[in-house]
Amino acid sequence: MIQNFSKILDKAIEEIAKLPGIGRRTALRLALHLHQLENIEVEQLLSAISRLKSELHTCQECHNLSDTPVCTICTNPKRNHQLICVVQDIRDVIAIEATHQFNGVYHVLGGIISPINGIGPEQLTLEHLFEKINNNPVEEVILALPTTVEGDTTNFFIYQNISDKVKVVSTIARGIGVGEELEFTDEVTLGRSLIGRTNFETAYSKNN
Amino acid sequence: MIQNFSKILDKAIEEIAKLPGIGRRTALRLALHLHQLENIEVEQLLSAISRLKSELHTCQECHNLSDTPVCTICTNPKRNHQLICVVQDIRDVIAIEATHQFNGVYHVLGGIISPINGIGPEQLTLEHLFEKINNNPVEEVILALPTTVEGDTTNFFIYQNISDKVKVVSTIARGIGVGEELEFTDEVTLGRSLIGRTNFETAYSKNN
Repeated sequence: MIQNFSKILDKAIEEIAKLPGIGRRTALRLALHLHQLENIEVEQLLSAISRLKSELHTCQECHNLSDTPVCTICTNPKRNHQLICVVQDIRDVIAIEATHQFNGVYHVLGGIISPINGIGPEQLTLEHLFEKINNNPVEEVILALPTTVEGDTTNFFIYQNISDKVKVVSTIARGIGVGEELEFTDEVTLGRSLIGRTNFETAYSKNN
Repeated sequence: MIQNFSKILDKAIEEIAKLPGIGRRTALRLALHLHQLENIEVEQLLSAISRLKSELHTCQECHNLSDTPVCTICTNPKRNHQLICVVQDIRDVIAIEATHQFNGVYHVLGGIISPINGIGPEQLTLEHLFEKINNNPVEEVILALPTTVEGDTTNFFIYQNISDKVKVVSTIARGIGVGEELEFTDEVTLGRSLIGRTNFETAYSKNN
């Protein structure tokens, strides 16, 4: 991977290899590919990346990404604004939107509480969440955070701050993935899926 | 992966996913990463990519990539200009340079003859190679092309055109990789390594 005949290629490899999950070998392959593309194709890529910095905003309401100051989910009058789904980051919004099972609005925390990584409540958008709940009628808050110790810690922290202000605080179901075999499921998940068992008729009506 | 709240994000995902080996999920991860970077970091990346198009040249002598009209390998007086190593593309130059075993110059074909992919001799830099060999004293041409049918076809084509003009035409050795077990080597490679067996003393003196 050592080459010393082009500083321009070296610099491109160095910059591309800074991207997450891209090593120097992949960076070289991408750099050579980019060099061989038509000018217009490279310009379109550069312009699209550039606009990510200059024109992509964080929604003032929910901290989701947005082309406008307030995102299209928060400004959609057909969505239930009294149902808030709290997620760690924008990828979770995309994942939940793809299910077509949720018609409320979101609140993106920008992370979860993780003392070991130096992330406390003040680094997240929690204050804004509490403020919204204090100032607006909210029926239910769904906590859709990772099922980890940090996720649980964040869940409890939020619950303590909002439980007396909203009717229902719920978390997404922990259980066995659809299509998974019981024998290959870890004990903790299997145990939780027993504790959180669902009435037969409810379970199947939800699927319809 | 469906999201419809940001056209800017969509466009960036679409452009990034056009790169080889990058799917839409990775493109999303990269787009979010780029959005979160500092302006200066994104500018450095964009500038490095942009220079790949605007400032990176193809060497007039060997068709390697170069920051100057003629590359630093071709302009290096310490290298043996009568020893030409013919390779498929620039990645092969980088790989061979990394071995520190070669002190000649290169000729990058830009591909190999492959009728099935519509690549004939005229799409490659073969004419230029023959012209160089006709007009300059060349001691040896090393053919370092892939050990495939297309590679062999290209080897024979080059050999027919240059064998009466250079003293030696050689190909890189086909054999068992250093550190590999015989029992896991395919028969063709093992067979070739027997046919191309090397005198014991020569083999070990080459390694020193």
